[in-house]
Amino acid sequence: MKKINIGLIGLGTVGRGVYRVLTERKNFFREKLGIDLNLLKVCEKNPFLRKKMNIDPKRFTTKYQDIVNDKNINIVIELIGGINPAQDIIIRCLKSHKHVITANKALLANCLPEIFKVARRYNSEIRFEAAVCGGIPIIKSLSEGLITNRIERIYGIINGTSNYILSRMHEEEYSFHQALTEAKKKGFAERNPALDIKGLDSAHKLSILAYLAFGEFIPQEKIFVEGITQISPLDIKCAKELGLVIKLLAITKKTDSYIEARVHPTLIPRYHPMANVSGVYNAVFIRGDLVGNLLFFGKGAGQNPATSAVMSDLVDLAQYSANVKMAYPKIAKRIKKKEDVFSKYYIRFNAIDKPGVLSKISGILAKYNISISSVTQKETKRARSVPIIMLTHLAQEKKIDMALAEIDKCNFIRGKSVKLYLEEF
Amino acid sequence: MKKINIGLIGLGTVGRGVYRVLTERKNFFREKLGIDLNLLKVCEKNPFLRKKMNIDPKRFTTKYQDIVNDKNINIVIELIGGINPAQDIIIRCLKSHKHVITANKALLANCLPEIFKVARRYNSEIRFEAAVCGGIPIIKSLSEGLITNRIERIYGIINGTSNYILSRMHEEEYSFHQALTEAKKKGFAERNPALDIKGLDSAHKLSILAYLAFGEFIPQEKIFVEGITQISPLDIKCAKELGLVIKLLAITKKTDSYIEARVHPTLIPRYHPMANVSGVYNAVFIRGDLVGNLLFFGKGAGQNPATSAVMSDLVDLAQYSANVKMAYPKIAKRIKKKEDVFSKYYIRFNAIDKPGVLSKISGILAKYNISISSVTQKETKRARSVPIIMLTHLAQEKKIDMALAEIDKCNFIRGKSVKLYLEEF
Repeated sequence: MKKINIGLIGLGTVGRGVYRVLTERKNFFREKLGIDLNLLKVCEKNPFLRKKMNIDPKRFTTKYQDIVNDKNINIVIELIGGINPAQDIIIRCLKSHKHVITANKALLANCLPEIFKVARRYNSEIRFEAAVCGGIPIIKSLSEGLITNRIERIYGIINGTSNYILSRMHEEEYSFHQALTEAKKKGFAERNPALDIKGLDSAHKLSILAYLAFGEFIPQEKIFVEGITQISPLDIKCAKELGLVIKLLAITKKTDSYIEARVHPTLIPRYHPMANVSGVYNAVFIRGDLVGNLLFFGKGAGQNPATSAVMSDLVDLAQYSANVKMAYPKIAKRIKKKEDVFSKYYIRFNAIDKPGVLSKISGILAKYNISISSVTQKETKRARSVPIIMLTHLAQEKKIDMALAEIDKCNFIRGKSVKLYLEEF
Repeated sequence: MKKINIGLIGLGTVGRGVYRVLTERKNFFREKLGIDLNLLKVCEKNPFLRKKMNIDPKRFTTKYQDIVNDKNINIVIELIGGINPAQDIIIRCLKSHKHVITANKALLANCLPEIFKVARRYNSEIRFEAAVCGGIPIIKSLSEGLITNRIERIYGIINGTSNYILSRMHEEEYSFHQALTEAKKKGFAERNPALDIKGLDSAHKLSILAYLAFGEFIPQEKIFVEGITQISPLDIKCAKELGLVIKLLAITKKTDSYIEARVHPTLIPRYHPMANVSGVYNAVFIRGDLVGNLLFFGKGAGQNPATSAVMSDLVDLAQYSANVKMAYPKIAKRIKKKEDVFSKYYIRFNAIDKPGVLSKISGILAKYNISISSVTQKETKRARSVPIIMLTHLAQEKKIDMALAEIDKCNFIRGKSVKLYLEEF
């Protein structure tokens, strides 16, 4: 089995997530991918974290040079953030023919072309799925899935902190400061939230998205940025009355003559899918000339979603380096039989409208251990039979079918009952 | 520049789309990818289409064997559909070390493991992004972007015809047959729509998604399938009154002990994003253990979206074969200046409540060529000033700023006016 040696720099929130997945899912990768993803060295300047996470001292260093200079390492995961020394680390790794994975949006928005140039010259790869929208595979979708499209426009809700604050202002009529305080308390805003609430974090990400969409790099200072700090409860209220919702949108559009890129609070129609993206969720709306409108929606931050993104880059690069392919499918053996499925159900009976019917029906359902969450009997003036609608709690398909067969035989039932499935996600 | 020779089999709707893009965007690919995607041969059993599409006779054949046996062809795009002779074509191409792209969901749901086995043995690649959800890059996202996740469940609205019919039944209180008739008229249902409305098309796609999610193949006959033909307007109405919407969902879940896969009409809460996926749109909801909940939304069918999917597979395989990488970014030159942006705006003035104010404000706006789409003056009983909210049509930022500066100087204005952007997508 081919072995890929990995160096991990930075044990912050995402770094710890990546460490954990690489350690705990070693066998999962071996089986699914046929690759040994070997975490050769971990660098973290705070040595206390080595002990806390119980990392073998032989694999641990506080100096990033130990990773940059290690010729056995194939892929480096940079998760320290900030411009320095991240930039130096990435450039030096690429120059020594290591592939690099980073989640560093500030750095990329600052010097993406330079980094790409170095990667190209030294035949190394740079990947950054975790830099935008955490777990949503938006980088891969734009740069691979939609590659033949002429992208016309992108609208993104790409900063979870701002979206959380605006959502709470809409829901609770909070002032900006009340919502910010709550966001800090719940861990959805950093102690210094300036980058988020002033729109700069969104601008960093927009610069990356625009590059992938158009192949052209828009330096951050060319992006018009306005944050959410000036949004007042009065404007939220007025917007609501007009059927609108205020969101911090990152917008980029391309025509034959111009590219446009801006980040600012924006009113959008309440019925648009983007309007319902609330809390810390992210969403990206893309219009391509072939594909039409696409919407991606998911968790934009947090340890696990960001880890998922870093790991997808890692698997990509490892497969590329080792030139191996995924295992082919086994035939599924333990497929659940229809009668064993558990679901909630919607049931509609057509029954004669006379006393005792409801009691009889619910008695039979109870016998089969089916519990009811709601009953509606529809009023119908002239009809001889009335529809009775029941929603059930989770029940086994087999039991439902047996109960319905028994109920349908009752003399107060007119016609076969209707059974539909109910999912509440 | 490296050249990749392509064989295209089938000039149906998607085939013609692929032909057109390969022909018209040749330079786009050369510039963006540094590859010459050379359409060497086109096969279509109806020779009339050659003339209609003005294809060079030297590049045209009515016999697929001419493509299967051509040693110069690197990648074959199979777009004829059905099991035979598509299966034979694909197997023979893979055995002669050609990579294959297909959109053939019925075939894949029938013999995916066999096809994968052959591809593996002969070191060829098989790709099928267009087989599920047209333009949504769901295959790539599941098989690459989310690869380190343990996928827990997938819910899909993956048949546009059924979704269109159900949407119309909800919107217009149509019967199933009324909605089906309309769908046929508009070209959203085939003349024989059985595969779609009976749920089989969804089952084919679910089988493919489940394989990518779990690495296990569920043969189609093991999937419980119920179509939408029995849905009555009464049940749609009852569901609505309960705050629910009926959708044809494809569902697969995996636990440690079982895989479950089913397709059936399902009631879901009206406020869930899936409930608002209407018409011919598709949506896929995925829950992974790391990434949490993800939602993908876009056009599931049609010439252009399917072409986008086929082309992304083609570029992937071409890059893989030619071992080349995307061009690195240029610095964007023609970035639109903030003052030149055109947008709709929300403007809130705080004005003294006296006659003539509205006329003065709209006069100044008119002077700058800004046209108003709505005005609301909020009633406030005790206050000395009242908020006046205006929504504008598209206007130039510079003009808006000049108008607001002028208005803010008027003696009936109290405090700075608020300007927010408005997007209606």
